[in-house]
Amino acid sequence: MSNTTAPNEVISLIDRHRTIRAFRDEPMPADHLQLIIDAGRKAPTDATAQMYSFIRITDPDLRKLIAELAGGQAHVVRASEFFIVCADVHRIARMLEHRGEKMGHWPRVAIHFAVADATLVAQTMVIAAESLGYGICYIGGVLNGIDVISRELKLPVGVLPAYGLCIGIPNEYPNRRPRVPQHLVVMENQYVEPSAADLDEAYTAMAPITRSGDWFAVLQRYFAPGGTMEQREVLYRETLKQQGLED
Amino acid sequence: MSNTTAPNEVISLIDRHRTIRAFRDEPMPADHLQLIIDAGRKAPTDATAQMYSFIRITDPDLRKLIAELAGGQAHVVRASEFFIVCADVHRIARMLEHRGEKMGHWPRVAIHFAVADATLVAQTMVIAAESLGYGICYIGGVLNGIDVISRELKLPVGVLPAYGLCIGIPNEYPNRRPRVPQHLVVMENQYVEPSAADLDEAYTAMAPITRSGDWFAVLQRYFAPGGTMEQREVLYRETLKQQGLED
Repeated sequence: MSNTTAPNEVISLIDRHRTIRAFRDEPMPADHLQLIIDAGRKAPTDATAQMYSFIRITDPDLRKLIAELAGGQAHVVRASEFFIVCADVHRIARMLEHRGEKMGHWPRVAIHFAVADATLVAQTMVIAAESLGYGICYIGGVLNGIDVISRELKLPVGVLPAYGLCIGIPNEYPNRRPRVPQHLVVMENQYVEPSAADLDEAYTAMAPITRSGDWFAVLQRYFAPGGTMEQREVLYRETLKQQGLED
Repeated sequence: MSNTTAPNEVISLIDRHRTIRAFRDEPMPADHLQLIIDAGRKAPTDATAQMYSFIRITDPDLRKLIAELAGGQAHVVRASEFFIVCADVHRIARMLEHRGEKMGHWPRVAIHFAVADATLVAQTMVIAAESLGYGICYIGGVLNGIDVISRELKLPVGVLPAYGLCIGIPNEYPNRRPRVPQHLVVMENQYVEPSAADLDEAYTAMAPITRSGDWFAVLQRYFAPGGTMEQREVLYRETLKQQGLED
């Protein structure tokens, strides 16, 4: 990535970030948990509406179930803390109804803003947790069991699991994961289509991500027809309906 | 919020966060911009797929147009830096096609993960920028002109503006904005429906947000039938279609 020397502790902390999947089997002190939650609640939020809820999972059976649904991710069970991070427009609806008003119908915009709001809180918690020495892992695999998880957590209409978040004491420090070149993700005034050379450059930059040395295998498995994302799409739409977030 | 003393610089920085709308009319040094972008690129990303693009807006006319579309937000023009933060699954499609593979069809899951990915990067950039003394403002109002902005920035199929992000030198330090009580946003093992007393408590906590002292007026204007979000929903769906992110 960059060779610039980090000019302060915050930028140096961000530089040291790694996703951690091996955790020590130890609880988090209550004051640390409170500091992390306090930090998250201070994150920016669209229209100050706080369209998120975090369900802290302390029940070991629930942790095991979610770990299995997410594809056998043992760190979900072992992490000191594990949250299901939810997009939530239910609370707004309740606030309006409490004063005799109705909620409008804006399900697509709701997902857009509520996923963003939840992620502003989550990433602020992550950086706070890392500053206290913890490691973290986001769990996108929650979408593999999004229907079951919504039911198990008794999520009402207007609430949808976005992903999971493990926070724990690291028992590993993996190598830095690669990124595509900067000019492919930051552009000026208009979108620039990547050239064939750019795409080759991206494959070269990302090669260390797999043992095979070929990022294509990962992209194909996740994103091509019949891949992980297409499989998730079916269940995702059913769950949107179940959670009253349909068109 | 909490009365706990911040135990380190990072948590103290997060505590000092305020949304800034008054900026000094000064450019950002190139090395600071680079540090902020470097920080963002190191953020966690789903499946290491980096489903985001940031369009840095340096063209003054484009800044003015976006500021107007977003509802006359002068800070979009005045901030040292302004980005349109985009959800982007186009690059993945191009990577697959480059190797003779097709992109799957998963438009709903694409918005979900790409908005999350973009926000992980944005909020990491925000905390890095704040550590360098900058102030920030997210611009959800970009959704008021999402169709025009997508065309002006020549966003291809698979790319959607999520929101704007101003970064600049603060010329104000507003009071802390209120938040709803913690037990309404962090729950344990299952969702807890707020009681009538909880909703009253939330209205009381949030009252300082408006001159009228009544959060209800804000909630109604944004979220009730005929409000801002319902108006955005129509244009949002048209733009999803325009950007090839329809069902």
